[in-house]
Amino acid sequence: MTYCVGVCLAEGLVMMSDTRTNAGVDAIATFNKMHVWEQPGEQVFVILTSGNLAVSQAVINTLDEGVPSTKSGEEAETLLTVGSMFQAAKLVGRAVRSVYQEYGETLQAQDTGFNISLLLAGQVKGRNLRLFQIYAAGNFIEATRDTPFLQIGEHKYGKPILDRTLRWDSALDETLKACLVSMDSTLKSNLSVGLPVDVAVIRRDACRVSVKKRITEDDPYFRGLRDHWSKALRSAFTDIPSPPWVDELG
Amino acid sequence: MTYCVGVCLAEGLVMMSDTRTNAGVDAIATFNKMHVWEQPGEQVFVILTSGNLAVSQAVINTLDEGVPSTKSGEEAETLLTVGSMFQAAKLVGRAVRSVYQEYGETLQAQDTGFNISLLLAGQVKGRNLRLFQIYAAGNFIEATRDTPFLQIGEHKYGKPILDRTLRWDSALDETLKACLVSMDSTLKSNLSVGLPVDVAVIRRDACRVSVKKRITEDDPYFRGLRDHWSKALRSAFTDIPSPPWVDELG
Repeated sequence: MTYCVGVCLAEGLVMMSDTRTNAGVDAIATFNKMHVWEQPGEQVFVILTSGNLAVSQAVINTLDEGVPSTKSGEEAETLLTVGSMFQAAKLVGRAVRSVYQEYGETLQAQDTGFNISLLLAGQVKGRNLRLFQIYAAGNFIEATRDTPFLQIGEHKYGKPILDRTLRWDSALDETLKACLVSMDSTLKSNLSVGLPVDVAVIRRDACRVSVKKRITEDDPYFRGLRDHWSKALRSAFTDIPSPPWVDELG
Repeated sequence: MTYCVGVCLAEGLVMMSDTRTNAGVDAIATFNKMHVWEQPGEQVFVILTSGNLAVSQAVINTLDEGVPSTKSGEEAETLLTVGSMFQAAKLVGRAVRSVYQEYGETLQAQDTGFNISLLLAGQVKGRNLRLFQIYAAGNFIEATRDTPFLQIGEHKYGKPILDRTLRWDSALDETLKACLVSMDSTLKSNLSVGLPVDVAVIRRDACRVSVKKRITEDDPYFRGLRDHWSKALRSAFTDIPSPPWVDELG
């Protein structure tokens, strides 16, 4: 399993992914699920992947090598040549479909689903900062001011805190905290999501990755956050008065 | 969808269920998912149901009318005639299989899964208080001191708070609070889980339902709990310091 979250706000973008992959509980490994392409100051793209690891890696490799152009005689396209986020999302969709065309039928014949989901975010200089979720058919949706975050993989455990705290005008540091608490809840409840966690922050109009961090088990800030949150939840819970009808228990 | 939770502790038992059923978002209704059989002081059984409503109702009706005995010449058995919780769980399992035998093949032919999951809890005088989860094949597992709660239906949103707060020696009023917060988180995140919520509490060795409540939208205690929890979470979140590396954002 996997947990990835992306948030697109007035101030910028926060992207976060875990690194655990598993083929059964006896085959656990650490793989990077965050991929960055950038020409600093000109354009930046971040992709987070979830799903079948062979499919995810095939899509990333296809994007690195270039997706064959749909127009005959033209060169293969990469994220750095498309010129807009909408075209970038379409390119990733084409890469997904090209992998599907190669492996989809065989995977299905072997009862293995063609299972992939991606978050793509970034900005091309002079254009808008955008965040997309791309499905296994290569189609996609975009985050909006009303719903500034998108999640892929094991999304349920970490969603309530995002619902409660994130808004379009949230500050980047508050958003980082919210994503880290969301990741903590997911790590606690699903063993197939695991540390280390990769974080990328992109300030609006910077067109470069402003901060990129790998958070390990030993990270003092993340340890403090987990401990603080756990104690605060218990204390908030203890402060709730008991149901008045509990007296009826006698 | 549905959310039901049962907790079996040193002091007794808490059972809680929502009441929303849906066949698509345009077909929402309120149905009781909590069913009680009792001879006060002698024996008490509570069942919570999740899954296909027709299947759930068929199982409950079969239990009410009596499950045909496996021994020829003997009368149909009901929960009030079996004499132990283990035999009660086996009886519910037989009721599930009898419904499967009648409808399973046709449901499958029409691409509708035979989808049911139940929580059964209770006590027969002089024996132990027990809580079981019964699957669609009629087989079952039991809650233990290590894992005192079981959930069916939409279980993910409401699980973290139970993991953090419930132990075998938790008090009944704390357990009620934990289940109500768990229900609140689920109500907030899944529209197919809805109020009113039914609650039953059974004190160990009482062999009767000690408290049974229906909590509606207007319930002042539950409104207070939701409000308190929401504010406390936001305040706990605000108190977390910002990541030290946020300065790198410039």
